[in-house]
Amino acid sequence: MSVFTRVTTDEVSVWLKRYAVGTLSELQGIAAGIENTNYFVTTTQGRFVLTLFEKLSVAELPFYLDLMAHLARHGIPCPAPIADEDNRYLGALKGRPATLVTCLPGAPVISPQPQHCARVGATLADMHLAGHSYGSAQENPRGPKWWREAAPKVMPFLDAQSRNLLDSELEFQARNRADALPRGPIHADLFRDNVLFDGERIGGVIDFYFAGVDCLLFDVAVTLNDWCIDAAGEIDPARGEALLGAYAARRAFTAAERNAWPALLRAAALRFWLSRLYDFYLPRPGELTHAHDPEHFRRVLESRRAHPGALT
Amino acid sequence: MSVFTRVTTDEVSVWLKRYAVGTLSELQGIAAGIENTNYFVTTTQGRFVLTLFEKLSVAELPFYLDLMAHLARHGIPCPAPIADEDNRYLGALKGRPATLVTCLPGAPVISPQPQHCARVGATLADMHLAGHSYGSAQENPRGPKWWREAAPKVMPFLDAQSRNLLDSELEFQARNRADALPRGPIHADLFRDNVLFDGERIGGVIDFYFAGVDCLLFDVAVTLNDWCIDAAGEIDPARGEALLGAYAARRAFTAAERNAWPALLRAAALRFWLSRLYDFYLPRPGELTHAHDPEHFRRVLESRRAHPGALT
Repeated sequence: MSVFTRVTTDEVSVWLKRYAVGTLSELQGIAAGIENTNYFVTTTQGRFVLTLFEKLSVAELPFYLDLMAHLARHGIPCPAPIADEDNRYLGALKGRPATLVTCLPGAPVISPQPQHCARVGATLADMHLAGHSYGSAQENPRGPKWWREAAPKVMPFLDAQSRNLLDSELEFQARNRADALPRGPIHADLFRDNVLFDGERIGGVIDFYFAGVDCLLFDVAVTLNDWCIDAAGEIDPARGEALLGAYAARRAFTAAERNAWPALLRAAALRFWLSRLYDFYLPRPGELTHAHDPEHFRRVLESRRAHPGALT
Repeated sequence: MSVFTRVTTDEVSVWLKRYAVGTLSELQGIAAGIENTNYFVTTTQGRFVLTLFEKLSVAELPFYLDLMAHLARHGIPCPAPIADEDNRYLGALKGRPATLVTCLPGAPVISPQPQHCARVGATLADMHLAGHSYGSAQENPRGPKWWREAAPKVMPFLDAQSRNLLDSELEFQARNRADALPRGPIHADLFRDNVLFDGERIGGVIDFYFAGVDCLLFDVAVTLNDWCIDAAGEIDPARGEALLGAYAARRAFTAAERNAWPALLRAAALRFWLSRLYDFYLPRPGELTHAHDPEHFRRVLESRRAHPGALT
């Protein structure tokens, strides 16, 4: 349940007077999502999503909102923030930072086929190309710096085998820093539940609140590690090739990226193993029910270590 | 027929490489419109409209494209220009200034009911409110300055009665300048064929290429003179009240605007009578078939002079 802060139709009707989107017809809480409160806001003019930010600060939010606006104006099907009468994307409602964004069509595809992976690869490349001219920068909030902070905190909860795996992988990643690869704003969380398919077309790429500036290839690895694997965590060749081929058709990989690919696949698995360990063992109050099983990404990491993938 | 400049699928495919909108699936010329060449561009990612500008110059276009982008980011359902890899809305194709914009759903309503007029009034007010924070300014290209230039050129073609009417109205307007009324960017051509209804909702407001900075009330008068009149040119009370009531619910009219309303309704009729006379008697080569009958707006003007409307 993601409605942490309740708002009434009267409160939203008054709040909407600062926008040029018509008047409120319907307000409906959205159950999905675990970081923010979201409502569908239907007006006489269309359908929007109202987000009240429960954790992110007013200082962090412009990077995300401006990135979404930047990508949307390049034709990327992502939520476009709506500016208010003061020409601002970020407002406040019920004491929370709040924003109104466009509502996008479609639904997640949980069992993707190669053609879905190809669409995701092409759109990810388009996002990276469009992001090239984005002017702001904010570090990937779950990048190597965060790994170094989080690892010691989860270490005491792990058995010896997992401790060794985590130590070994952090040490490997420290020796294989990817900082020289092409960089830019990345989504960093492009899992299946963050892509809405409207038939064969991608209707929406959502949830940019883990975005940051990092290697573009890390984004590709995160995406492939979710879209193109089997139940055991192994890469499915047909889906993997579909995603990477469609990506490369839009943005060709560099030689340095091809060299770095096996390490980046491991880094992408490490990031989610670590964050899930963190959320599992160090939950914030009321968060336990949302924690994903960390084991899945331990298996993915071990698979990437045992069978390094190749970018051809 | 509005495809003045032909482009091939190969040319558009190459051109689209500079955009993050996927690859071309289908290209289809659009017959409507008389000022520019338009194509529907369907890509793997969505549907867009490609416009090649046949008359407007590279110097004039940023005002229009930036205005559309500004209104779209405020939630107005208007075409949003797509930025290219250099972050620019305006490109070139076949030696013409060219732009790609989002494609909007719906179709014009030719016989509007009061509820359609109410929607148009509310959206027009929203456009004016959203336009308030738009930073650029370009004069209404068919404003009083243009009337003074165009009138002497059409005068020789008119009979004595029409000459007297035109002289009298220009003289009246010169004595009743509306310059002190609230101003801002206005659409200035919000006729029925420029509003797409998608069911009961407005799916799109299109064709901003007569937009300019002028009195907001002039925009209301232009709109009412098309949406809310009967075959004889008289204002239909039910539709007129629906449009004005919905507009005023979003942006209340000032006392000065209420005073100026009868003169603005006349000015709005004059503007189209004069431009239609101009296009009829002084067509550019190849344009004769597009000329609307000027008589309609002469009747509208005479009706507004005989029966001044009131803003309550």
